[in-house]
Amino acid sequence: MKAPTKITNLDVTLRDGGYRNGFTFNQDYAKAHVQNMERCGVEYAEIGYRNGSFKPITDIGLTGITPDSYISDIRSGVSTACLCVMAHPKNIVAEEIVRMHGLGVNMLRFCWDSNRIELTRDYVRLAKSLGMTVCVNLTRVSHQPTKLLLANAEIVRDSGADVLYLADSNGSLTPTRVWDMVNLVRGYTGMPIGFHAHDNLGLAMSNSIAAVKAGATFIDGSLRGMGKGAGNLKLELWLAFLRCGHGIADYDHGPLLDQVERLENIDIRSRPIQPLDDLVLGLFDLTVEDKDRIVADATSMSQIFLNAAA
Amino acid sequence: MKAPTKITNLDVTLRDGGYRNGFTFNQDYAKAHVQNMERCGVEYAEIGYRNGSFKPITDIGLTGITPDSYISDIRSGVSTACLCVMAHPKNIVAEEIVRMHGLGVNMLRFCWDSNRIELTRDYVRLAKSLGMTVCVNLTRVSHQPTKLLLANAEIVRDSGADVLYLADSNGSLTPTRVWDMVNLVRGYTGMPIGFHAHDNLGLAMSNSIAAVKAGATFIDGSLRGMGKGAGNLKLELWLAFLRCGHGIADYDHGPLLDQVERLENIDIRSRPIQPLDDLVLGLFDLTVEDKDRIVADATSMSQIFLNAAA
Repeated sequence: MKAPTKITNLDVTLRDGGYRNGFTFNQDYAKAHVQNMERCGVEYAEIGYRNGSFKPITDIGLTGITPDSYISDIRSGVSTACLCVMAHPKNIVAEEIVRMHGLGVNMLRFCWDSNRIELTRDYVRLAKSLGMTVCVNLTRVSHQPTKLLLANAEIVRDSGADVLYLADSNGSLTPTRVWDMVNLVRGYTGMPIGFHAHDNLGLAMSNSIAAVKAGATFIDGSLRGMGKGAGNLKLELWLAFLRCGHGIADYDHGPLLDQVERLENIDIRSRPIQPLDDLVLGLFDLTVEDKDRIVADATSMSQIFLNAAA
Repeated sequence: MKAPTKITNLDVTLRDGGYRNGFTFNQDYAKAHVQNMERCGVEYAEIGYRNGSFKPITDIGLTGITPDSYISDIRSGVSTACLCVMAHPKNIVAEEIVRMHGLGVNMLRFCWDSNRIELTRDYVRLAKSLGMTVCVNLTRVSHQPTKLLLANAEIVRDSGADVLYLADSNGSLTPTRVWDMVNLVRGYTGMPIGFHAHDNLGLAMSNSIAAVKAGATFIDGSLRGMGKGAGNLKLELWLAFLRCGHGIADYDHGPLLDQVERLENIDIRSRPIQPLDDLVLGLFDLTVEDKDRIVADATSMSQIFLNAAA
C-alpha cells in the first residue's frame, strides 16, 4: 500500500479513558501524560471533557470537568503540544470557549446534538474566529441511515468546522461499512474526515485502517485502548502499524511504551480487557444503554446473548 | 464485500494456548472445551501437540503430549466434531500416525522442518493414505524471502498435503504483506491456504481479514487469543466478524461465549493481554528467542525498545 496522506493522531486516553475510572486521573498524572505524548510526537492530546459527559456522572473527576486551572497547568508543562478539549454544546457557554482559547487549547471537539444545531453552529464559528481548530463528532453513526448522515454532515460542513468525525460509538461497524461511510461523507462534504473506533468486535484496528484507506486523515486512539466499554483503538499499536505498515517513523515508541507502563501502574482499569457483554452489544449494534437490559437476570453469557438477540 | 468462499475455522486454544500455562489443561476441561466447540459449529478443534513442541519443555502438560488415552476420551465426548493434532515430524514415528487415525483424529498438522523434508513427505503421504486431512504449516514466514517461500510451498504441494498454512509466528506482518503472500502462494500452488496469526502488533484480526480477502480458506483462532507471546486471533471476535461482516450465521455464539467464561475461570492466564515486550518484538520482526536479549538489564520499556532497535 502506498503511504497515506499525513495522518493526524489524537490521544484520547484522558477523556475516553475517563469512562473507566470516573475521570479520576489526577493533575500530576495528566501533566506527565501529555508531556510524554509531546515527546512521542503524537499530534494532539485530548485532555478531557469540559463540564461533563452527555449524561451527568456522579462525582466526576478532573478530566471530566477540565477546569481552567487544569488546562493552564497542562499547558505550562509542554511547548509545542496541541491540546484538545471535548464538549457537549449543552454543557458550556460561549465565554468558556474564549477562555479555553486564552488558556492555550488548540482544538475544540463538539459532540453532535441534533437538538442544538444552532447553538453548535454558533460555537463552531466562535472557535473558528479565535483561530482554533474545530471538529464536530457525529456519534453512533451505525444508527444513522445514509440520508440522515449526509444531512448532518452538510450542516457540519456549512458551520465551517475543520474536521468531521465519525464515531462508531457502538463498536459494531465492520471495515467495509467504515470504508463506504468515510468515502461517502468525504466525497459529499470535501472535508477532512476523522474516525473514532470502539473495539466491541475487536475491529478498532481493522476499521481505522479501512477509514484511512478511504481517505480519513484524523484517527483517535488511547493508550491500551482505555475507553468506554470495550475501549478504543490502542494508540501504541496504531503507531506501530503506521511504522510497520506505512514506513511512518515519526513517532518515538520509547516514551510511548514507558507511558503505557506508567498508566497501567497508576490504574489497573487501563489494562486491556475485552468484556464479553460489550462484544454482544457490538454483535447486535446495541448501545451501552442496552447493557442493563441484556445483562439483567442472566446467569450465563449464552443467556445474555439470547437476551440481546430477542 | 461479497461473502467469501466457505471459511474453515480451527480452534487452537488447547494447543497454542498451552504456551501460556505449560499445556496443563486437564482432561475434563479439554473434553468440555471440544464439546462446546462442536456445539458452536467450529469446524476443527486442535487438541494438542503430539509429543511436545519444537524445543523440549520441562514438565509439559497433557495437551503438549496428547497421549492416546487423551485422544480417545476427547473423541468419546463428541460426535461429528473434527479433531486435529499438531506434530513436529522429529517428535513422532510413523506408527503413531496410524494409531492417531485409529483413535479418531481427523486432521494432522505438520510443522515445517527444513532438515526433515523427506520425513515430512513420508508422513504426509501416510496420513493421506489413511484418509486424514493433512496440513503443513510454514512457520516464521516473515523471515522467508519470496524465493524460499515458494520453494517450500512447492515441496508441500508435491507432498500431496491438503492445506498449506502460513504462520506469522513473529506477529510482525501487516495486512498488505499478508495479502501479497497469500495471493502469491495460492496462485503458485493452487492449494487451499491457511493463515495463523499472532497479535504482537494488534493485527491478528486485520491480517486474517486480509488473508481471507486474498483467498485463504483456513483460519486459526483461539478463545481470548490465548497463545504464545501476544497470542493469536481471538476466535470469539473472528466468528463475530464473520457474522457481522459477511452475514455468516453458522456459529452459535451462546456456547462459545460460555466457554470463554469457563476458560477465564479455570485459568487467569487466558485473559486478554498485550505484553509490551512482545509488541516490540513484532515492531522489529524478532522471534521469541530474542526476548531475553532485549529485556536483559532493561529497567524501562524505552530501554527494551532501544535494545531491540540496536
